[in-house]
Amino acid sequence: MIQVIKIGGGILENEASREMFLRQFAAVEGPKVLVHGGGRLATTMAERLGVKTQMIDGRRVTDKETLDIVTMVYGGLVNKQVVTLLHTMGVNAIGLTGADGGWMKSVKRPIKNGIDYGYVGDVIEVNGAHLHRLLDNGLTPVIAPITYSAEGLLLNTNADTVASQTAIAMAEAMRREGDEARGNVQLTFCFEKAGVLSNPDDESSLIARITPDSYTQLKADGIISGGMIPKIDNAFAALQEGVQTVRITHASNILGGTIIELI
Amino acid sequence: MIQVIKIGGGILENEASREMFLRQFAAVEGPKVLVHGGGRLATTMAERLGVKTQMIDGRRVTDKETLDIVTMVYGGLVNKQVVTLLHTMGVNAIGLTGADGGWMKSVKRPIKNGIDYGYVGDVIEVNGAHLHRLLDNGLTPVIAPITYSAEGLLLNTNADTVASQTAIAMAEAMRREGDEARGNVQLTFCFEKAGVLSNPDDESSLIARITPDSYTQLKADGIISGGMIPKIDNAFAALQEGVQTVRITHASNILGGTIIELI
Repeated sequence: MIQVIKIGGGILENEASREMFLRQFAAVEGPKVLVHGGGRLATTMAERLGVKTQMIDGRRVTDKETLDIVTMVYGGLVNKQVVTLLHTMGVNAIGLTGADGGWMKSVKRPIKNGIDYGYVGDVIEVNGAHLHRLLDNGLTPVIAPITYSAEGLLLNTNADTVASQTAIAMAEAMRREGDEARGNVQLTFCFEKAGVLSNPDDESSLIARITPDSYTQLKADGIISGGMIPKIDNAFAALQEGVQTVRITHASNILGGTIIELI
Repeated sequence: MIQVIKIGGGILENEASREMFLRQFAAVEGPKVLVHGGGRLATTMAERLGVKTQMIDGRRVTDKETLDIVTMVYGGLVNKQVVTLLHTMGVNAIGLTGADGGWMKSVKRPIKNGIDYGYVGDVIEVNGAHLHRLLDNGLTPVIAPITYSAEGLLLNTNADTVASQTAIAMAEAMRREGDEARGNVQLTFCFEKAGVLSNPDDESSLIARITPDSYTQLKADGIISGGMIPKIDNAFAALQEGVQTVRITHASNILGGTIIELI
């Protein structure tokens, strides 16, 4: 089995939680890929540099200066610090953006209804075989949420999307090559809750497993609602495209949490 | 032949000279590696962030904040911009620091005579085979001058040294593996002069070729002096360690300039 594990930037900003998370990641057996978010460090850096953060409907607009900051902070600082720490834990990590090896291509998001998010990428093409080759060489990719376009732009990209697209492309590359020996792809999202909860205020109310049938029922009963719905919809979309299982779990428990699968 | 080409950060800071240089680099045939310096962008960024640059004998002291800036600017911004531009020129570039794949290890420079340069790395171990594997996969490494230590530190490292150590390690890996088919390693330093000049003020006074014998004579005659001597000494040191030829040339003419070789 190949594990694609996504961690939010917030966890990596605090030295103690970063260490705790990376030790767990290092202990995961078999081939694995880490996708990290950015967190608030880019916002802090923008403030220090006097660059104003513009938001539309709660979403950051990435102007040219913000893009440079995102590239520096996520693609440089956060990525290289994680890579270096993983080496001290015996993991032969290699940091990547989508541009490194040209494996994750995007287009600059078109202006829609007069809203221009700026240098934001919508993923259009992913070369999963590139990551398989790195894994075959004993390397563990550590991916920053930055992609690139055919025109030579770097583009700020949602880290959850990068993680899903990575897992889908790796599954797809295996299918295409008829390479059953590698096993399946599992996609894990680590966040600040124990997993999908039947009571959002009770960390012990974990739903251990969700299938299409149980999901329909959980939504009908109002047990799953709000912001969790797009997360789970995205999980099922990844499963439809060949990922074997999706896990949603707390960053301190990356082999636990909720398992989402088709059957 | 494998080409290891070093370009100073200054050339990359100007969009026109960057484009001109990268187009030439893209046109170089066969397997190749690019090592880039940092330039003044880190100093500019430090000024904007209000971080004081401390110098000892004309050399920058890398404190923790400066190291973070160097990691962001060289390992993030400059490196990823170069990688992305090379993709638009048909080069499948992959950006690396020494930590990515753990291939260039250093130690934090010890305090000597009371002088502490801070987070500066002295290279101790280079895995040339890592770069050969990337080349074998059709990738072109683009290397930022940052290395890492076994303790998990990122370390600011002289870009000329990174280039020499890269070329030496690649030659050494080929020798060890008895891999003659790959050919030889050529190391090229691009800078702001046509090459080694017999008259520093006359760009047409290029010395096309230097060997140990001619070097002794050129020094005795006072034709080569000053800052060029350590450069050429370093070139000969690389040749002694298995690099086939060293070239010193202008950034606008990367296949020209002065060739230095043992025979």
